[in-house]
Amino acid sequence: MATETPSLTAEAVLRRAADMFAQRGYASTRMKDIADTFGVTHAALYYYFRNKEQILIQINRVAIEGLMATARAVRTSQIPVEHRFEEVVRRHIEFIVKNQALVATLFDNEYALPRAHKTRLRKWRREYTEMLVEMFVEGQRAGQLSAVVSPQLAVALTLGAGNWTYRWYRLDGPIGPDDFALQSVRFLTAGFLARDAAPFTSPGGADGQGTRDSTHSDNRDGTGQP
Amino acid sequence: MATETPSLTAEAVLRRAADMFAQRGYASTRMKDIADTFGVTHAALYYYFRNKEQILIQINRVAIEGLMATARAVRTSQIPVEHRFEEVVRRHIEFIVKNQALVATLFDNEYALPRAHKTRLRKWRREYTEMLVEMFVEGQRAGQLSAVVSPQLAVALTLGAGNWTYRWYRLDGPIGPDDFALQSVRFLTAGFLARDAAPFTSPGGADGQGTRDSTHSDNRDGTGQP
Repeated sequence: MATETPSLTAEAVLRRAADMFAQRGYASTRMKDIADTFGVTHAALYYYFRNKEQILIQINRVAIEGLMATARAVRTSQIPVEHRFEEVVRRHIEFIVKNQALVATLFDNEYALPRAHKTRLRKWRREYTEMLVEMFVEGQRAGQLSAVVSPQLAVALTLGAGNWTYRWYRLDGPIGPDDFALQSVRFLTAGFLARDAAPFTSPGGADGQGTRDSTHSDNRDGTGQP
Repeated sequence: MATETPSLTAEAVLRRAADMFAQRGYASTRMKDIADTFGVTHAALYYYFRNKEQILIQINRVAIEGLMATARAVRTSQIPVEHRFEEVVRRHIEFIVKNQALVATLFDNEYALPRAHKTRLRKWRREYTEMLVEMFVEGQRAGQLSAVVSPQLAVALTLGAGNWTYRWYRLDGPIGPDDFALQSVRFLTAGFLARDAAPFTSPGGADGQGTRDSTHSDNRDGTGQP
């Protein structure tokens, strides 16, 4: 059997499974479906993974460790503190668009994780977000970064813009992932208001008042981590 | 049966089902589970919906029509063209945080839709995005909006930041949905760079070159719609 499947490694199984989960959903993918794409019986898969849940857990681990390693690398790098937040966002987006299926699996299947792993996932998310909030605050202190909202909300919205790219960025599209990540972070740093334009106040709906003080840095984000 | 279930309406079933899909996943929720929460047999549910897929399709319809109505209302409103994009983003975020479960169901279960509905969903997404791109371009023409990237990429990243809030904003948290939407759009318009700071060029990783021209408005976004 092994001679027919030179490419059947744990890493290859995880990548393939992530592709399949992303395409047809975790619940609708069977171990047998994954095995079929390698031309092996599903029994052969069990050598690597006890069941589908183990595959899901391992995919999450790879995605999380990848993102954590990225943030830690920036934190311990020679990059000046005032540029670290921008750089970590750039690398975050780069990681997402280069690992779309892994990230999709991480983002889309929390409900299917055993309770202990859900807890671990939340703990990781909090830790990751806190690292980025810290870098954001350092950037503010250095005078490089500003924000009309709290650092927590700024980080959450920024990560959200980056995270969502896993759903629409096309690796085979007109912009390569490195350039895409750089353009994205530059957009997020600059915003889209013209330099001399008046800041937005809502003309309809809500009152449009109450948040006109700038750079207040209390904890009034929507809570939770992105 | 009807006397026992005064609250069993199609609308109530959709809201309840969306809550359950968001909490435990679409695949893991049975018609019987939904019926149980109303204290009726699952046969009673069939009066409203032929099967679970029909519930999913109807939830999507409600969410999509809600967002489309929002965008169309802004487009035909008295709001000056230069402020329409900011206002539509504010309403987009407001809709998302006020309808988190509906939106979660819309975003998380595309794989489970019949092919014709997948196609319809993509068509809607394209239409919605195009409306917003149009408003963005109008804002640029009026001198209110700028952007260091294409309008398509600007809209995609902005909607991404807004969309992702369905995953972390807490309705029972410290900021109400109206204020949250307003703060968010103000952050996205202003970006987080200090006024006098130099624009970001990547100090590590990618070359950091190649995209320093500002406000080019060609089509070099990552393609697709958010």
